[in-house]
Amino acid sequence: MYLAIDLGGTNIKAGLVDEDGKIINRAQRPTLAHRGYEEIAKDMALCAIEAAETAGVSMDDIESVGIGSPGTIDNNRGIIVYANNINFRNTPIRSEMQKYINKPIYMGNDADCAALGEYVMLKKDMKSFVFVTLGTGVGGGIIIDGKLFSGFNGAGGELGHMTLVKGGKKCTCGRKGCYEAYASVTGLIDATKQAILENPNSYLASLCKNNLEEVGGKTAFLAAKDGDELGKKIVDEWIGYVSEGITNIVNIFQPEVLAIGGAISKEGDTILKPITEFVEKYRYSKDVDQTRLEIARLGNDAGLIGAAFLGKH
Amino acid sequence: MYLAIDLGGTNIKAGLVDEDGKIINRAQRPTLAHRGYEEIAKDMALCAIEAAETAGVSMDDIESVGIGSPGTIDNNRGIIVYANNINFRNTPIRSEMQKYINKPIYMGNDADCAALGEYVMLKKDMKSFVFVTLGTGVGGGIIIDGKLFSGFNGAGGELGHMTLVKGGKKCTCGRKGCYEAYASVTGLIDATKQAILENPNSYLASLCKNNLEEVGGKTAFLAAKDGDELGKKIVDEWIGYVSEGITNIVNIFQPEVLAIGGAISKEGDTILKPITEFVEKYRYSKDVDQTRLEIARLGNDAGLIGAAFLGKH
Repeated sequence: MYLAIDLGGTNIKAGLVDEDGKIINRAQRPTLAHRGYEEIAKDMALCAIEAAETAGVSMDDIESVGIGSPGTIDNNRGIIVYANNINFRNTPIRSEMQKYINKPIYMGNDADCAALGEYVMLKKDMKSFVFVTLGTGVGGGIIIDGKLFSGFNGAGGELGHMTLVKGGKKCTCGRKGCYEAYASVTGLIDATKQAILENPNSYLASLCKNNLEEVGGKTAFLAAKDGDELGKKIVDEWIGYVSEGITNIVNIFQPEVLAIGGAISKEGDTILKPITEFVEKYRYSKDVDQTRLEIARLGNDAGLIGAAFLGKH
Repeated sequence: MYLAIDLGGTNIKAGLVDEDGKIINRAQRPTLAHRGYEEIAKDMALCAIEAAETAGVSMDDIESVGIGSPGTIDNNRGIIVYANNINFRNTPIRSEMQKYINKPIYMGNDADCAALGEYVMLKKDMKSFVFVTLGTGVGGGIIIDGKLFSGFNGAGGELGHMTLVKGGKKCTCGRKGCYEAYASVTGLIDATKQAILENPNSYLASLCKNNLEEVGGKTAFLAAKDGDELGKKIVDEWIGYVSEGITNIVNIFQPEVLAIGGAISKEGDTILKPITEFVEKYRYSKDVDQTRLEIARLGNDAGLIGAAFLGKH
């Protein structure tokens, strides 16, 4: 049995996870991110212990504890190097947690953990696997020979931060034209809002009653499904950006499987089919076995399941 | 001792390489690419044997033979899947060569071999290393945990074929706006020619006597060194494209060392300094150890040395 912690800006979520990646029990506490790291680390430990004990599982039966955290993680040193939304900087989370838990504690970036979770649950001895999440940003996780790859300093796999449009839209990272600025759900929402401003009498605008605050990642997809041309145009353009980046990733990694995650991936074949067609048409090496593109399977639990298996991968 | 073969469209080059990566002896034959693969494979084998025997080394003292070839290579099956400039397609080079050489034969892509050669000669236990060659195209080689990484099908590492300018310049691969279309020496030469056409009375134009066929990768660099503004502008723009792609690669791989190769890398600090400054300014994760950028050290021999060590990595 494993314990996993998903550290977020709002909540600390803990899970008791079995060998098959099944979440047996859960516990949750607020992060209260303004507190000192000692208190947060204590709550992380107690929350994990709670997930075990309320399921009647003794800590003696726990093999290891895994932590998924936003930001840049250094598992070797057991620190969170930098996490913007919790205001951690070179924070020694592992040593602090080990005051309460005497088990091996492994740490990883939350996108990496989600990738690992998806990988583990595919239950296949894949040589390489890439996970791309389309959310507020664009995140990535890379698994090579069964091991998470994140560069020599733990900061790699930033698939959202490759320039796709040199000199293009400003990205939160300070560069211009990053993949994330276009292919994230934020990018899709921006494009939808822009279209509504330019077409206030459109069907698309009516879907959110001309209130830009009502616009979400689904708005353009809903309009497109109702046959609206403007909605279809926005969706097609967004899928075009997503596909360009996925093709880049295929050309660079040629992974056995590339899975697309994030809430928007629930659109399923509506996005998977055109992305797959684009990649097949434009990928560099056409005479070799093809990367299999898939929609991610686990949803929000991927991070927790992956964190549980950090010690193994 | 190892034997290495660098298979090119024009020549077959063979080398006898010692444990330290030193090339002890060489041999060469024309590829005569129009011939059947049986004859080419035979010449590859005989050329390698010649490199050993003319150095007085018996084949008994050879550990293995490595082949670096352009195109897509499948080492597991011992075939060249596809090599455009020799017209090979699913060609069983290994089994054919083993008619003449009874040693383990390993095969790899030439850019991968060059990366491996540079890696081996850095003689350091690097966790990850990326090699980017700026030549006719832009090639890449990736080494993770001491092993070449080229995806599940051997076709990965195509760093030149990520879109940098969506909808931009046509690339030889069929897509638009690839990194290679801008950052290759071909891209630099194109930009130089264009500037000369637009400025026939410029100093830059005088350097090649207004003869576009005289334009090379060095032309704009020469003009810039002489203080010519037009030359400087072309060089700066080209370095800007190169830097964008290198920053992408750093964000994705965070390798311990990234080496830049190809004949143009002889410009040394003239290109390394501005690229390094760009990467430091725009890389995503600033709070972690930095990738060390370097100019490649081996020149044309990298491929031969890397091929020799294919069996070990």
